[in-house]
Amino acid sequence: MPSRSDITYFGAGPALLPTDVLEEAAAALLNYNDTGLGVAEHSHRSAIAATIINEAKADLASYLDIPDDYEILFMHGGGSGQFAAMAYNFVGNWVTRKHKEAQGSESDESAVPKLKSAVENLKMDYIVTGGWSQKAAAEAERLFGSEHVNIVADGRKANGGKYGTIPNEDTWNLSRDAAMVYYCDNETVHGVEFPGFPKRLEPGPDGPIVVADMSSNILSRKIPISKFAAIFFGAQKNLGSTGITVVVIQKRFLQQPSAALMRQLGLPIPPRILEFETIAKNNSLYNTLSIFDVFIAGRVLKRLLQQHPDKVQGQELLSQKKAQLIYEALEAYPDIYQIIPDKAARSRMNICFRIKGGDAVEEAFLKDAAALGLTGLKGHRELKGIRASNYNSISLEAAEKLADFIRAFASPSGTAAVE
Amino acid sequence: MPSRSDITYFGAGPALLPTDVLEEAAAALLNYNDTGLGVAEHSHRSAIAATIINEAKADLASYLDIPDDYEILFMHGGGSGQFAAMAYNFVGNWVTRKHKEAQGSESDESAVPKLKSAVENLKMDYIVTGGWSQKAAAEAERLFGSEHVNIVADGRKANGGKYGTIPNEDTWNLSRDAAMVYYCDNETVHGVEFPGFPKRLEPGPDGPIVVADMSSNILSRKIPISKFAAIFFGAQKNLGSTGITVVVIQKRFLQQPSAALMRQLGLPIPPRILEFETIAKNNSLYNTLSIFDVFIAGRVLKRLLQQHPDKVQGQELLSQKKAQLIYEALEAYPDIYQIIPDKAARSRMNICFRIKGGDAVEEAFLKDAAALGLTGLKGHRELKGIRASNYNSISLEAAEKLADFIRAFASPSGTAAVE
Repeated sequence: MPSRSDITYFGAGPALLPTDVLEEAAAALLNYNDTGLGVAEHSHRSAIAATIINEAKADLASYLDIPDDYEILFMHGGGSGQFAAMAYNFVGNWVTRKHKEAQGSESDESAVPKLKSAVENLKMDYIVTGGWSQKAAAEAERLFGSEHVNIVADGRKANGGKYGTIPNEDTWNLSRDAAMVYYCDNETVHGVEFPGFPKRLEPGPDGPIVVADMSSNILSRKIPISKFAAIFFGAQKNLGSTGITVVVIQKRFLQQPSAALMRQLGLPIPPRILEFETIAKNNSLYNTLSIFDVFIAGRVLKRLLQQHPDKVQGQELLSQKKAQLIYEALEAYPDIYQIIPDKAARSRMNICFRIKGGDAVEEAFLKDAAALGLTGLKGHRELKGIRASNYNSISLEAAEKLADFIRAFASPSGTAAVE
Repeated sequence: MPSRSDITYFGAGPALLPTDVLEEAAAALLNYNDTGLGVAEHSHRSAIAATIINEAKADLASYLDIPDDYEILFMHGGGSGQFAAMAYNFVGNWVTRKHKEAQGSESDESAVPKLKSAVENLKMDYIVTGGWSQKAAAEAERLFGSEHVNIVADGRKANGGKYGTIPNEDTWNLSRDAAMVYYCDNETVHGVEFPGFPKRLEPGPDGPIVVADMSSNILSRKIPISKFAAIFFGAQKNLGSTGITVVVIQKRFLQQPSAALMRQLGLPIPPRILEFETIAKNNSLYNTLSIFDVFIAGRVLKRLLQQHPDKVQGQELLSQKKAQLIYEALEAYPDIYQIIPDKAARSRMNICFRIKGGDAVEEAFLKDAAALGLTGLKGHRELKGIRASNYNSISLEAAEKLADFIRAFASPSGTAAVE
């Protein structure tokens, strides 16, 4: 019967949460700030809830240095909900802009035929580097039709049909005037992370409008927010618990056209719960939000701000150091461990590798690791192998412990060498 | 600094949760079943998560006597998400049926013009008896166009423009062959509850296909499930905590047409996270679900099953008794208290009333109640006045305490009489 201190959990998400945050959450569930009522019971319309939301927003903005012209939204539906939401909202906003252009000095009605013709050229651009960006593109195709989805690049091409690289930017086939260019900054399943902001997406006078999924590497490195129209992330990896998804969006992209206009154009609109403009107008309280999950995210942020006087930069150094420890241990035994992605695209967050010798050796690795309290290391069901998720709640000591075990397992007296 | 035992919270939702359930949840957050890891940290793909989901489903089915040909889904997005989801999915399923009819001996392609002509007559029927059914109808109009939404009856008509009645069934203007007939079984804001299953909606050979929002009265009375195509409810009133929404749907209504066919017909499809067929196929794990919230719901259900050997019938008697205590106290002082809805449509769950004398007297009522630990009684911001939400976690003793206070406040020596 292990206690929390016996276990280091490297699962890909839901991920480990800091024990002190969970202790605060457990107490708050029963009696929040001596109100006689728990944090999950207080009304989402109460002053208590508003304070929890506003503090979490302020702390996130401070930690990540989010400019004032961005709005922070807490939403339902997870990352998969955002695959749809980003397509709906950025197409809607694109139509708003085209509508303004088409109106010019003309009447509103004569704008519709022009808009219909513009919609024929509507494109959403997707850079596909792993399972999650692939799913996002598939959702856009399903909702809008494949004629409106342009795959800018596919990480499987020129890599034997498998994800593990970020295609050379020179090969990217970007559309002119896309409603958005979408990519996944860190692919949790395939362990592929963009090393930095793509050069081809640097802002020019006409965009591009860049959207990124940062579900699994948010809060772990500095982000040039002002280069993005929007980013989003589920809470359950680096921020908190499952139940809220965060969108950070530049306010000028919020505006949506009327539902009637979109129907005239044959384009779908988001259900209200996925409409950014509605969620922003209601300070994330269009409908009942899980204040408990916002509370947990808020405590995680306060803890990060306390831990790192230089905010996310401090955590970035730590994340880098932890990842390096683990990758170096793997690289020390190239005959035993095979790191899946290209070196240039290696994720600091999800370290994916196979062990030579096949399933039996990998099972021995998992078993020996578990005996030391190192758990959650099994690879994704699609990819198999081993995946060590190195999120913020993994301490430097825990990363060292894993690195030591990786070395010991591969050493001449270790299990891998014996089998 | 009150403790939980000092406070009885009558808020409309998120609602009071049983203290013993919260104590279990607090312990499980830190270390679930001696695994060394909390319930919110375990993977949603783990055997632990599957057990939590499957037990909650089985206990819900047992408590409510849900037949085997129904599927239970845990979803994201709250009740507002379901306003969209019900419209999308029941229209999709209606198209599936029309497609089968139109195919007959003909080729697939020749079916499309017939389907297009059928779609011209597509209707969703809404019985509007308060703010929530009104919002559901508005979402369907927004997504599909008002030509596809038929307001069967509106509780404001023949009631001075205010909700508070259920229109006589003889006046209901039901469509032939509607994709669904939708109503809200209990209107939380306006305190209007259907006394039982509507006679006009009794199943015949061709339907009707009945869908109901039971967010705020689920688990409080027996439901003739087999008369419904689907029901749904947010968890945060009678079932548990904000973060999951439950759909109980007859399996034969799950099937959806292809996205391409729906686009040809000019009809929207749900984003994946709101598509019942997808959620059902994945046992509610299409994407990351808050297992913590399912855990809480599961504990609430186990507690209800222990408390009531005759399951929901036992709770129904108790709910009725509690509501009667409070309404009788109000009725004893007709010069002081004015119950908002019609007697025939009074909610057992949300008891809405005004106090003669205006805002100042109502504020005195709230203040005096709070001094006794009776909180959360302020009416909805749209309706004002007082609302006592009498959900399952309000004990008989708590209802008695409120009834006693209602009498005391109105008695000759009470505050109402003095002012």
